[in-house]
Amino acid sequence: MLGAMALEFHLVKTDSGCAARLGTLILPRGEVATPTFMPVGTQGAVKAVSPEQVAQAGAQILLANAYHLHLRPGEEIVAARGGLHQFMNWPHPIITDSGGYQVFSLPTRQVSEEGVRFRFEKAGQPVMLTPEKAMAIQEALGADIVMAFDECVAYPTEYGQARAAMERTVRWAERCKRAQTRDDQALFPIVQGSTFADLRRGCAEQLAALDLPGIAVGGLSVGEGADVMRDVLGYTVPYLPQHRPRYLMGVGLPEDILTAVEMGMDMMDCVIPTKHARTGVLFTRVGRLRVMNADYRKDGFPPDTHCDCYTCTNYTRAYLHHLFHAEEILGHTLASIHNIHFYMTLMAEIREAIAEDRFVSYKENFLEIYLRKGKKSRRVG
Amino acid sequence: MLGAMALEFHLVKTDSGCAARLGTLILPRGEVATPTFMPVGTQGAVKAVSPEQVAQAGAQILLANAYHLHLRPGEEIVAARGGLHQFMNWPHPIITDSGGYQVFSLPTRQVSEEGVRFRFEKAGQPVMLTPEKAMAIQEALGADIVMAFDECVAYPTEYGQARAAMERTVRWAERCKRAQTRDDQALFPIVQGSTFADLRRGCAEQLAALDLPGIAVGGLSVGEGADVMRDVLGYTVPYLPQHRPRYLMGVGLPEDILTAVEMGMDMMDCVIPTKHARTGVLFTRVGRLRVMNADYRKDGFPPDTHCDCYTCTNYTRAYLHHLFHAEEILGHTLASIHNIHFYMTLMAEIREAIAEDRFVSYKENFLEIYLRKGKKSRRVG
Repeated sequence: MLGAMALEFHLVKTDSGCAARLGTLILPRGEVATPTFMPVGTQGAVKAVSPEQVAQAGAQILLANAYHLHLRPGEEIVAARGGLHQFMNWPHPIITDSGGYQVFSLPTRQVSEEGVRFRFEKAGQPVMLTPEKAMAIQEALGADIVMAFDECVAYPTEYGQARAAMERTVRWAERCKRAQTRDDQALFPIVQGSTFADLRRGCAEQLAALDLPGIAVGGLSVGEGADVMRDVLGYTVPYLPQHRPRYLMGVGLPEDILTAVEMGMDMMDCVIPTKHARTGVLFTRVGRLRVMNADYRKDGFPPDTHCDCYTCTNYTRAYLHHLFHAEEILGHTLASIHNIHFYMTLMAEIREAIAEDRFVSYKENFLEIYLRKGKKSRRVG
Repeated sequence: MLGAMALEFHLVKTDSGCAARLGTLILPRGEVATPTFMPVGTQGAVKAVSPEQVAQAGAQILLANAYHLHLRPGEEIVAARGGLHQFMNWPHPIITDSGGYQVFSLPTRQVSEEGVRFRFEKAGQPVMLTPEKAMAIQEALGADIVMAFDECVAYPTEYGQARAAMERTVRWAERCKRAQTRDDQALFPIVQGSTFADLRRGCAEQLAALDLPGIAVGGLSVGEGADVMRDVLGYTVPYLPQHRPRYLMGVGLPEDILTAVEMGMDMMDCVIPTKHARTGVLFTRVGRLRVMNADYRKDGFPPDTHCDCYTCTNYTRAYLHHLFHAEEILGHTLASIHNIHFYMTLMAEIREAIAEDRFVSYKENFLEIYLRKGKKSRRVG
């Protein structure tokens, strides 16, 4: 199997109280402890922070997006500059999404068996993305893990439409596998099937048969809500390969991550920590803190009193409050550093809890404090 | 003299070929080698960079603004958080401007002998700034150097108006001196007088008689141009005290800084390096480089091929081009780091040249390369 050398996954153990797994991903550019959360650098930059700030906040692997980087600056420019790691000055592992999720919401898209045709929203030029093209782009970018090109459907979707998209996703995954030429990138296919148990199972089984180094669950975080997500994972995860890393795409809030881990997922990504940061929403042990609120105008505490990140070590809520009201970009930077660190600390604690067979009680304790005391700030946040 | 202990100025030497001076400012929070350039953190933050990034780029002292910080967040909040150094996490020297320059351009301002009344543009509330109020604000903020409250006039201005403003500036400087209560802040008065040699001389002599630890030249960088600025310095500097640091406010471009140093000024500040950075304009040895230009789309060189700053060490013009076109804030950060470093390197080279009595030839060599080869990028920049 091409790309098999690109990734090793050591499944260290499974929690005795649930399906949560502890593992290690070994990639060409470093090891990643799982369960892991991957901050998002869609356009080849994590918004408002430097790569060193991201690494210092604890991130081990980033997600970038082949769709965005194809449109701008173009993968040939990234390749000519030595690939994405060198281009963006991130020497650690990178995963690129294929663009399937991005094109599914474009108003101008036309989907055929060949691929998806659409117009680039900025410049207006027609673009055609196919499984082969998505692979070529991702090979040029040079990430450590690349994603198959899939057909994502909206939520909710009728059974017939979900089945057609799922079956096409399987055929496209086979085409991606055939199109792969680099042996230093691990290709993950993406399980689709919307909210239909038989489609999810069928997709997972067919993709598992491709024997690729990892597998992803897609088509979630599209507005279905936490309960539906849990249901879908419940009837999908049992059909994912045991000894491959499992990546839940686009998730999510801390509470969703805890659910995903409990159900046996190993990798997650989401824009939430950085996107919320740029609106002045900081994650803390006791819930979300909206630092622009008047409550924090004079507040001499750090954003999170239980945090040892750069931001919480050096700045107060009063200063962040001031920066956001004064529209100083540094506010975005400081809040992003904190939120990434918060997520990374959550993941480290999750791994420690699994190692000690107490993930379920860890999750309960975390959520009791996070959701109870956070009620007020969650409402306003 | 109150505040005399707050500042020592050691005049090391004067260049044998011109009036350029080499010195050291010793302040409560550190030493500053002069001639020095002070990056601007108007609202208590240098835009788009962290304090560590500013320090790593070589800055030894920052300028913040009492007017802006009075309006938001309010000096009482900064004071309650331990003062401006602690509030903004900058343990090194800070200078605060009094607000005289900021209020002079407000459309709603009403100037009287008492002070200036205006409306805060954001919230609309009436504000009264007086010499005593400006001192109280700056004492609450706690900078190492504080500026007297002055009356700045537009350029050009009639003689009578310039004289009235200059005379009021002297009276206000006396009131500032009387209002001072802290002995750990050095107060600098500001020489006004527009473009009239007798007014500048009269102002300088009257302010010198106050025997304060330093002195500033204000009312420049208001659109008068490089030639007028040189003329004004020519008939002002001879009347500034020899053994006090001399601060030229709001200057400027590299070529203006070289002129100011040549004429005997020791301190400068300007938003140009960071403001230009945020529009994608980078200062280099060969002139300004507008990194959004199509020329740089594929360019694998660092922004400045002669630079060892963080940005030039780790990133290419192609990446910065991409970041600016993709509207990624990181572009602002990287360009700001480079431009601050460029200015700091310029100042270090200036000091070295003065130490070796070759400032005039250094200046000529610098400008020959900077202005000649930079012609194209200067036009577009």
